[in-house]
Amino acid sequence: MKKAISKINKRRSRTKNNREHLQKKVGQAPGQLIFSGDKKVDLIKCETFIYNAAELAYYENDDIAQLLANREEGKNIWINIDGLHDTEFIEKVGKLFNLHTLLLEDVMNLNHRPKFEDYGEYIFFTIKMFNGVQNEELDYEQVSFVLGKDFVISFQEKPQDIFTNLRERLTSGQGRMRSKGPDYLFYRLIDTIVDYYYFAIEHFAEQLETLEEDVLENADKESLVKMQSIKKDLVFLRRSVLPVREALSGLIRSENKLLKKDTRPFFQDIYDHAIHVVESLESYRDMLSSIKDLHMNAMSNRMNEVMKVLTIISTIFIPLTFIAGIYGMNFQYMPELSYEYSYPIAWVVMIVLTLLMIYFFKRKKWL
Amino acid sequence: MKKAISKINKRRSRTKNNREHLQKKVGQAPGQLIFSGDKKVDLIKCETFIYNAAELAYYENDDIAQLLANREEGKNIWINIDGLHDTEFIEKVGKLFNLHTLLLEDVMNLNHRPKFEDYGEYIFFTIKMFNGVQNEELDYEQVSFVLGKDFVISFQEKPQDIFTNLRERLTSGQGRMRSKGPDYLFYRLIDTIVDYYYFAIEHFAEQLETLEEDVLENADKESLVKMQSIKKDLVFLRRSVLPVREALSGLIRSENKLLKKDTRPFFQDIYDHAIHVVESLESYRDMLSSIKDLHMNAMSNRMNEVMKVLTIISTIFIPLTFIAGIYGMNFQYMPELSYEYSYPIAWVVMIVLTLLMIYFFKRKKWL
Amino acid sequence: MKKAISKINKRRSRTKNNREHLQKKVGQAPGQLIFSGDKKVDLIKCETFIYNAAELAYYENDDIAQLLANREEGKNIWINIDGLHDTEFIEKVGKLFNLHTLLLEDVMNLNHRPKFEDYGEYIFFTIKMFNGVQNEELDYEQVSFVLGKDFVISFQEKPQDIFTNLRERLTSGQGRMRSKGPDYLFYRLIDTIVDYYYFAIEHFAEQLETLEEDVLENADKESLVKMQSIKKDLVFLRRSVLPVREALSGLIRSENKLLKKDTRPFFQDIYDHAIHVVESLESYRDMLSSIKDLHMNAMSNRMNEVMKVLTIISTIFIPLTFIAGIYGMNFQYMPELSYEYSYPIAWVVMIVLTLLMIYFFKRKKWL
Amino acid sequence: MKKAISKINKRRSRTKNNREHLQKKVGQAPGQLIFSGDKKVDLIKCETFIYNAAELAYYENDDIAQLLANREEGKNIWINIDGLHDTEFIEKVGKLFNLHTLLLEDVMNLNHRPKFEDYGEYIFFTIKMFNGVQNEELDYEQVSFVLGKDFVISFQEKPQDIFTNLRERLTSGQGRMRSKGPDYLFYRLIDTIVDYYYFAIEHFAEQLETLEEDVLENADKESLVKMQSIKKDLVFLRRSVLPVREALSGLIRSENKLLKKDTRPFFQDIYDHAIHVVESLESYRDMLSSIKDLHMNAMSNRMNEVMKVLTIISTIFIPLTFIAGIYGMNFQYMPELSYEYSYPIAWVVMIVLTLLMIYFFKRKKWL
Amino acid sequence: MKKAISKINKRRSRTKNNREHLQKKVGQAPGQLIFSGDKKVDLIKCETFIYNAAELAYYENDDIAQLLANREEGKNIWINIDGLHDTEFIEKVGKLFNLHTLLLEDVMNLNHRPKFEDYGEYIFFTIKMFNGVQNEELDYEQVSFVLGKDFVISFQEKPQDIFTNLRERLTSGQGRMRSKGPDYLFYRLIDTIVDYYYFAIEHFAEQLETLEEDVLENADKESLVKMQSIKKDLVFLRRSVLPVREALSGLIRSENKLLKKDTRPFFQDIYDHAIHVVESLESYRDMLSSIKDLHMNAMSNRMNEVMKVLTIISTIFIPLTFIAGIYGMNFQYMPELSYEYSYPIAWVVMIVLTLLMIYFFKRKKWL
Ligand SMILES: [Mg+2]
Ligand SMILES: [Mg+2]
Ligand SMILES: [Mg+2]
Ligand SMILES: [Mg+2]
Ligand SMILES: [Mg+2]
Ligand SMILES: [Mg+2]
Ligand SMILES: [Mg+2]
Ligand SMILES: [Mg+2]
Ligand SMILES: [Mg+2]
Ligand SMILES: [Mg+2]
Ligand SMILES: [Mg+2]
Ligand SMILES: [Mg+2]
Ligand SMILES: [Mg+2]
Ligand SMILES: [Mg+2]
Ligand SMILES: [Mg+2]
Ligand SMILES: [Mg+2]
Ligand SMILES: [Mg+2]
Ligand SMILES: [Mg+2]
Ligand SMILES: [Mg+2]
Ligand SMILES: [Mg+2]
Ligand SMILES: [Mg+2]
Ligand SMILES: [Mg+2]
Ligand SMILES: [Mg+2]
Ligand SMILES: [Mg+2]
Ligand SMILES: [Mg+2]
Ligand SMILES: [Mg+2]
Ligand SMILES: [Mg+2]
Ligand SMILES: [Mg+2]
Ligand SMILES: [Mg+2]
Ligand SMILES: [Mg+2]
Ligand SMILES: [Mg+2]
Repeated sequence: MKKAISKINKRRSRTKNNREHLQKKVGQAPGQLIFSGDKKVDLIKCETFIYNAAELAYYENDDIAQLLANREEGKNIWINIDGLHDTEFIEKVGKLFNLHTLLLEDVMNLNHRPKFEDYGEYIFFTIKMFNGVQNEELDYEQVSFVLGKDFVISFQEKPQDIFTNLRERLTSGQGRMRSKGPDYLFYRLIDTIVDYYYFAIEHFAEQLETLEEDVLENADKESLVKMQSIKKDLVFLRRSVLPVREALSGLIRSENKLLKKDTRPFFQDIYDHAIHVVESLESYRDMLSSIKDLHMNAMSNRMNEVMKVLTIISTIFIPLTFIAGIYGMNFQYMPELSYEYSYPIAWVVMIVLTLLMIYFFKRKKWL
Repeated sequence: MKKAISKINKRRSRTKNNREHLQKKVGQAPGQLIFSGDKKVDLIKCETFIYNAAELAYYENDDIAQLLANREEGKNIWINIDGLHDTEFIEKVGKLFNLHTLLLEDVMNLNHRPKFEDYGEYIFFTIKMFNGVQNEELDYEQVSFVLGKDFVISFQEKPQDIFTNLRERLTSGQGRMRSKGPDYLFYRLIDTIVDYYYFAIEHFAEQLETLEEDVLENADKESLVKMQSIKKDLVFLRRSVLPVREALSGLIRSENKLLKKDTRPFFQDIYDHAIHVVESLESYRDMLSSIKDLHMNAMSNRMNEVMKVLTIISTIFIPLTFIAGIYGMNFQYMPELSYEYSYPIAWVVMIVLTLLMIYFFKRKKWL
Repeated sequence: MKKAISKINKRRSRTKNNREHLQKKVGQAPGQLIFSGDKKVDLIKCETFIYNAAELAYYENDDIAQLLANREEGKNIWINIDGLHDTEFIEKVGKLFNLHTLLLEDVMNLNHRPKFEDYGEYIFFTIKMFNGVQNEELDYEQVSFVLGKDFVISFQEKPQDIFTNLRERLTSGQGRMRSKGPDYLFYRLIDTIVDYYYFAIEHFAEQLETLEEDVLENADKESLVKMQSIKKDLVFLRRSVLPVREALSGLIRSENKLLKKDTRPFFQDIYDHAIHVVESLESYRDMLSSIKDLHMNAMSNRMNEVMKVLTIISTIFIPLTFIAGIYGMNFQYMPELSYEYSYPIAWVVMIVLTLLMIYFFKRKKWL
Repeated sequence: MKKAISKINKRRSRTKNNREHLQKKVGQAPGQLIFSGDKKVDLIKCETFIYNAAELAYYENDDIAQLLANREEGKNIWINIDGLHDTEFIEKVGKLFNLHTLLLEDVMNLNHRPKFEDYGEYIFFTIKMFNGVQNEELDYEQVSFVLGKDFVISFQEKPQDIFTNLRERLTSGQGRMRSKGPDYLFYRLIDTIVDYYYFAIEHFAEQLETLEEDVLENADKESLVKMQSIKKDLVFLRRSVLPVREALSGLIRSENKLLKKDTRPFFQDIYDHAIHVVESLESYRDMLSSIKDLHMNAMSNRMNEVMKVLTIISTIFIPLTFIAGIYGMNFQYMPELSYEYSYPIAWVVMIVLTLLMIYFFKRKKWL
Repeated sequence: MKKAISKINKRRSRTKNNREHLQKKVGQAPGQLIFSGDKKVDLIKCETFIYNAAELAYYENDDIAQLLANREEGKNIWINIDGLHDTEFIEKVGKLFNLHTLLLEDVMNLNHRPKFEDYGEYIFFTIKMFNGVQNEELDYEQVSFVLGKDFVISFQEKPQDIFTNLRERLTSGQGRMRSKGPDYLFYRLIDTIVDYYYFAIEHFAEQLETLEEDVLENADKESLVKMQSIKKDLVFLRRSVLPVREALSGLIRSENKLLKKDTRPFFQDIYDHAIHVVESLESYRDMLSSIKDLHMNAMSNRMNEVMKVLTIISTIFIPLTFIAGIYGMNFQYMPELSYEYSYPIAWVVMIVLTLLMIYFFKRKKWL
């Protein structure tokens, strides 16, 4: 139970931080970039991939302005930025690619709900990324993408990510990623994120199964705390994933030319997965509520059993004790006291009474 | 109760397998076919029917490429594949009919939610097929269909199916199936699957009726486990059937020429049945929740009865025992003790008290 | 309670029959008419009305083909068929009026959800008809209508119906029915059916009022069974009536010329009534759930009272009995035993204790 | 509690009457006007206002046909009819203004759900009017309006109404009513009705506040009855007001020329108020359900307290009584009996035991 | 608990006042302005800012008519009015800017639900503004805005507001506010209000966290009162914020030229925040309901524990007391009494019985 409670507390402090940071933004002019989140990394890491079908060059923390200036015609660029606390850096990137200040504001808002926005010249997409389960807890971060004519920029909150496989395939020139446009890279990035949602789903499925077993075996206070903890996680996950469906649907319906015709079916595929994830969450929600009912009923059931034991014992012995009490009275004139067979008769009466009671309880199906 | 719990566990391991297989796909490129499911059959079985109104030829496990090459003009083809673990084979079929890799991916995803997708040249439809009830459990599998200009391909997860009747009619030339186009065969296949949903519905209706009787007779822990088991089945069935309605609606509204004008009313007919099935599930859901309330109330009711017995016995005998206790005291100066009629008077007092209590309980309608 | 349970069982067997018959259709070709229902009548009864504003001829069980052939130009025809087990007859009618096999299939499916379908040449409408309440149970049957250019066909499951008044007015030439087209007759038939829904509604209103009174007076197991029975009826009625609204809305929006401009407002009027019925059902559903809460609360309330009685009696007498027990001990050296006023003092102590207890219970508002 | 129950019964008989009257209409031809309601007034009262910006003439129970015939060009007319039992009179009005029989039917249906209907030449609007609260009950009636090119007709069920202020302003020529067209008068009538809904809302707000206090203080059976009574009122009010929103929305979207361009914003204003009323009802519904939970929890809480008292007393005294019982045994060989300090030692043991119990209960926070 | 109840009462009186004032409006002509609310300020304060990119002039309580008359071409004006009780003043402003009487009515209705209305020449927007949390309570007021071609008017209920920062930036000429049109100022005002909603959200998050801890530790009556209080606040906040989303959506979709093309994305940004706030409220609602279940379950759990203690003690001691009672009987012929080892044997029997009971309870997992 300790673990369950400490988990509740940990998540609590996290969401509190996020809320506090959001308040910094309150009432500010829209152009003023303020980082709203914990600083997850000391130095921003900036990876740049410049590539076409034939070759790829990789740069770490190099000056983007210069890289852009030197870029050969027809080459695509992917810039991946880890760490969002350096507002100056973000602003510089914004200026280089001519991004709207509202977009940069959204990038730095680590609490932003998943959304797709079409700025014409470029497309903005922000989403929660689940990196896996650590210490029985989902590790997630806010990731934002900007897709332009020949570039993709990804902004991450924390250094580690789930794109290792993608980087390798891109670098080695395997598959279609290098020969296809930046919209295909953009697809592969979002696809990977939505694929990882299955780990979150799996995490819940396991927790619910354990919980169900626990409740069927013994419905105690620990189960209550676990239920509450799962409920909170479900509420959080639902808020993170539900808008993804909507954002993807916006992306699919967008008529922006940046999304080429043969890439579009792939986004439809991600959309299918997003719906699957949402439907899984809905059914877990349903199951949790059902387990709650199970718990409530199991407790009533046990109470019934406790009450029956008490009632059976009391109902049998209280009348017997009364009979014993009668013949424990000290009246001088009590004829039974001096009668020779009184004692055995008393026993017989009491045994018969007990048997009658047992018969009564059997008929009531309490025994 | 053992059975109910073992059933819960069986289903649990099944869904767990599915989830694990899904994770294999995580982060993979869309073109890489990975089979996500248990291998349900050792060797893939591939049936090919080449037919027109006049004649039909049947081939088992023959090379499809060759059959296609030799096919006479104007003949339709139905390929039915049992077993989806052989990715190489599936890929070969995909190439022969020029199918999109995303389609093949969906075929091999045994957890895919029912959907209709219009690829222009061909139509894709995937659905859960219920083969019947085995050991009080629904036996189902994922089935996918591709309808082209002159072909239907059906991909099944397990060898057995519910199309025996269809094969016979097609082979014998009975009915309209051979004279009509592949869209009519496609209709008959989906129609058969949706018709079989009635067995699943019937299965639930029976379980709910038994459960209701059980709860009205004696609401115990076993009923709880059964409720939970039915609830889970309902949640699963709902997730399997709800999207079918949506997929059929998409199919009906599709303007693809592959669905000829006089076949369209037949899809409307399937749609009606799908709505019927969904509405039945909704009302079973409603009934289950009502039975849960019944159970909860029945338990409270029984607790009330137990409490009444305890209270009646205690309330009658505790005061009597007190009176007996009084005259069991050993004080030297207790005038009643030596009075000759004390003992009978004590009895009278106690009997009167008992009668008063009984009258009180009668008035409270506890007796 | 017997009655309530027997009612549950009767309805159960009825729905079971329906389900079993549905299964006969499973996997069948769409053209093969199979009667799905209990045979409610031995011989099909077929009434034919041929009429115009001036005159009307009535035929019972005459050959329809011949009647149609002999019909004078400009005369309308209403064919009413009671009993649907004779598939051959139905098929013959179908051929005469050139009806789609899917329509005939729907006519013979006694479980079909209410729907409107526009076949262009004719209009199909199927609905549940409530004939009234018999033995505290709703008596209903499936009725289907086909409206053509100059004909109305009505297919009924059982012989009796609620159209007596209509037949009389049609025969006597009263009102507008004969002078107006078949669409007006069609309107009058459906209007009558929807009007009779008010009897079903009234039936529920009464049952709920009785139930509410019962629960307020004494919430016992019988109320539970009644609640469950009403709940099931409500679920059934809801499923029967909800789609009627949808079907009528389809009918009103249909642009089929068979529905003349001046008849259309009349269908809007039926639609209003259907909405009224649906809203009544929704509020009864709400009320039933509220009565369930009332029952649950009433039971908790009663339990509280029982517990209070037990606690008051126990709390008063257990300490007194302890005191009596003390002075019932047989120690040789107990100074109080030989003290002259011990006994009256013991009484005083015990009475004071009792008064204190009573004061305590009064303050807690338990007395 | 008597009052609450009598209120439930009164409302019950009222709705029963309405239902019974509705049944009179069942199966009738649409043109046959049948009054469905209690006769609320012996003689129909018919007020006629003929006016233009300059002058106004008022007639009570004069012959409308004649008034219409004599009316000067350009004058508007408002006819207000109190009492709807005289079908002949209603029919006469209908013929004079050329109203559809379905409209007259709706006027006489005192149970009709609020609706707007556009007949082209005139507009129909029916709504529930709340006259205020009488004996803690809402006094309401059905009111219908017909707006034509130069007339407004209002049909009321009962003689008293809430239009006194309007009549005065119209008669005295204050404000814009006389100079503006009949659509403005129509607006003022509906506006007044919707404004009065706030009294109904206020009535509920007060009842809920009282109820909440009651439940927090002592959750007893009376609260239960009150909850049920409020619930029923809420269900009724919701059914009366929800369709008003819809009807007003239809009125606003209607393109009928009878509603002039500069009157339209006024209907938007009523619409805002209607939404406000509906949202208030929704939140009261929410609050009632919350109070129900509060009641349930409060009762559980009290039960817990009762059980604690019982358990504390029993747990302390039952063991003590056992000890007393031991030394009340009459064995000849019981060494403790003759030991001099046995009695004081027994007391010490019993006091220590009691203190331990109290410590145990303190630690469990039961004391 | 005192605080929680006093808070409930305070809010109660506030909403009561609002309702009472609303009733003043009932049945009034739409042109008659009546202030509906508490008078929050003695003298209306009227601030006027006349500015262009180059300069700004500020006037407090100067005559607006004159300021308007003297205004140079191309200068924008922001008029902020604190206090709405002076209907004459409001009417004068209305006439100066040619505002519709319905708009002025809405401005003075302190209970108006948030809404956007497009009057063509100007735009109307009304919303609840949260000034922060005072004494654990949200301090809010109704604010209305009118945006015209070259002016913004803001109407506030109370003197203090959250626009201090905005005034400073406008006065000092910092940022874009002065160089951009009045629509940008209008955006900044609404943006600030929606930003402050995060404080309300934070307030709830904290209350819910405290409540959850309380319930997990000890679920008592105080928690009940707190739950009820939070529930009411949530219902109120939901009613205040839900329509804001709708109003903003109307504003975004409006094609009024007053909203310039480059200001529009900023309103989209506010819309995102409004959705975030609404989703937070929804999840808090969910969490509150979950905490209620937790509370209910925790109480049942505790009851179970109490019952177990009672049952264990009773079940052990009642039979022992019976045995003691037996040998306390005064029959002359009781052989055990005179047997030398009876007393120690009695002890052994009783100890063995006790051990058996303890074993039984251990096996039932009650100990
Ligand atoms: Mg801002
Ligand atoms: Mg990262
Ligand atoms: Mg994927
Ligand atoms: Mg896919
Ligand atoms: Mg995929
Ligand atoms: Mg629940
Ligand atoms: Mg309970
Ligand atoms: Mg992938
Ligand atoms: Mg198979
Ligand atoms: Mg079928
Ligand atoms: Mg059909
Ligand atoms: Mg069919
Ligand atoms: Mg439930
Ligand atoms: Mg079929
Ligand atoms: Mg019939
Ligand atoms: Mg009717
Ligand atoms: Mg009508
Ligand atoms: Mg009617
Ligand atoms: Mg319930
Ligand atoms: Mg009628
Ligand atoms: Mg009236
Ligand atoms: Mg108004
Ligand atoms: Mg207004
Ligand atoms: Mg108004
Ligand atoms: Mg409830
Ligand atoms: Mg008004
Ligand atoms: Mg202010
Ligand atoms: Mg903002
Ligand atoms: Mg933003
Ligand atoms: Mg922002
Ligand atoms: Mg609840």
